[in-house]
Amino acid sequence: MTAVSLEQKSAAARTEQPMWTRPEFEAQIRAVGPERYHDLHPFHHMLHGGKLNKGQVQAWALNRYCYQAAVPRKDAALVSRTHDRDLRREWLHRIHDHDGLPPEEPGGIERWLILTDGLGLDREYVISRRGALAATIFAVESYVTFVREQPLTVAVASSLTELFAPKIHKERISGMLENYDFIDDKVMAYFKRRLTQAPRDSEFALNYVLDHAKSRDEQEACVDAVRFKCNVLWVQLDALYNAYVAGNIPPGAFRPEA
Amino acid sequence: MTAVSLEQKSAAARTEQPMWTRPEFEAQIRAVGPERYHDLHPFHHMLHGGKLNKGQVQAWALNRYCYQAAVPRKDAALVSRTHDRDLRREWLHRIHDHDGLPPEEPGGIERWLILTDGLGLDREYVISRRGALAATIFAVESYVTFVREQPLTVAVASSLTELFAPKIHKERISGMLENYDFIDDKVMAYFKRRLTQAPRDSEFALNYVLDHAKSRDEQEACVDAVRFKCNVLWVQLDALYNAYVAGNIPPGAFRPEA
Repeated sequence: MTAVSLEQKSAAARTEQPMWTRPEFEAQIRAVGPERYHDLHPFHHMLHGGKLNKGQVQAWALNRYCYQAAVPRKDAALVSRTHDRDLRREWLHRIHDHDGLPPEEPGGIERWLILTDGLGLDREYVISRRGALAATIFAVESYVTFVREQPLTVAVASSLTELFAPKIHKERISGMLENYDFIDDKVMAYFKRRLTQAPRDSEFALNYVLDHAKSRDEQEACVDAVRFKCNVLWVQLDALYNAYVAGNIPPGAFRPEA
Repeated sequence: MTAVSLEQKSAAARTEQPMWTRPEFEAQIRAVGPERYHDLHPFHHMLHGGKLNKGQVQAWALNRYCYQAAVPRKDAALVSRTHDRDLRREWLHRIHDHDGLPPEEPGGIERWLILTDGLGLDREYVISRRGALAATIFAVESYVTFVREQPLTVAVASSLTELFAPKIHKERISGMLENYDFIDDKVMAYFKRRLTQAPRDSEFALNYVLDHAKSRDEQEACVDAVRFKCNVLWVQLDALYNAYVAGNIPPGAFRPEA
């Protein structure tokens, strides 16, 4: 799993394989989505298909807030690591996308809080992350740590789940608007905005990774980084499913009102 | 949850409370166990009560290996952070306890591998962590990161789940020997050894924390660190339960033979 296991590959296992061509490398990256992107997860289908009650949607939004809140920190970690001014300049707008850029851009975290407001959750409680599942915190903070510690190109590659995001966001907007009377157009602003942001970002990051991976091992580490990131997303839905569908809510976590 | 939320406490929420006395502080730490130590988790009861099949016990041992493998790295992180030679000297034996000290001490990780050998798992596969649940990796690596990043006294406090361990180890030894014909005395060596190691270690760490926390906020952060560590353990059992009892095995994770 992930770059961690790659690091542990024995010398013998590192067969002298030729580098993938640019199209082969891109195909390897794109193949990860259909294999393990979180649109395959049962909780995703329940969320979009109107199968959850309001308390379960609250739990999802509350936990997913932790992911949103981690993203600008992981982006800042990436910016902090590179001497490449062009990369810094390009990457920096991601932080504005999440944290906002006055006077006009409120940012994705603010849009997420409009969603949690709309679901009737207290803002201070959401922001405190007190009710989040420990599994959520571990997953999203592992993402921040990954970007801080892995080789730069591999860290960039971990953002490439954005290649798979527009489809899920479109499904989410139509599915949630259609199926839940407590969801309206206004609270879905986050996802609408991501429809234009994610493709622009992922195109840049994809080209960066295709250009900068300089060995087969590094190419494989980049593909593993996309798997790692899929795991970060999958674990969050597994934890939501176990806690709020199967009903095994861990000590200290958010409990929806009966 | 954990020191993370403490860091986010608003200034207003930090009421000027008096420091706990030494006995009060110790009682606060010890109260975390009955509230959320993983001996309360259904998977724990199933494991000790003989309710799991061999594949489920394999999954437990394979995932728990990742925790064992993280422990000496988190201990080295702690040793690397302190200028206190006495603390380093005391703490260093924990690394030997896990990694071994030739010629006589094989170490806890080797004892754990004797357990996974006994369960019929391939050593190379176990050590590679390829089949581990992503949730396991995120949890145990979050523990390493916590010890690397939190204030030193708080990092020491996160080890204090050892106060609650001897009871669980005793239950484990008798329960597993009694209930599983694929478990014998030899493979339970890890837990027998921990019966003497854990109390010695936890006594030192407890006194260190009681002596070094210098404000009520720091005392509370230490109690939160014990909660954090309980979460690290709890999340592992939640993930095992969801994958191997409820049957929701994530992509890429270990699949027991039918």
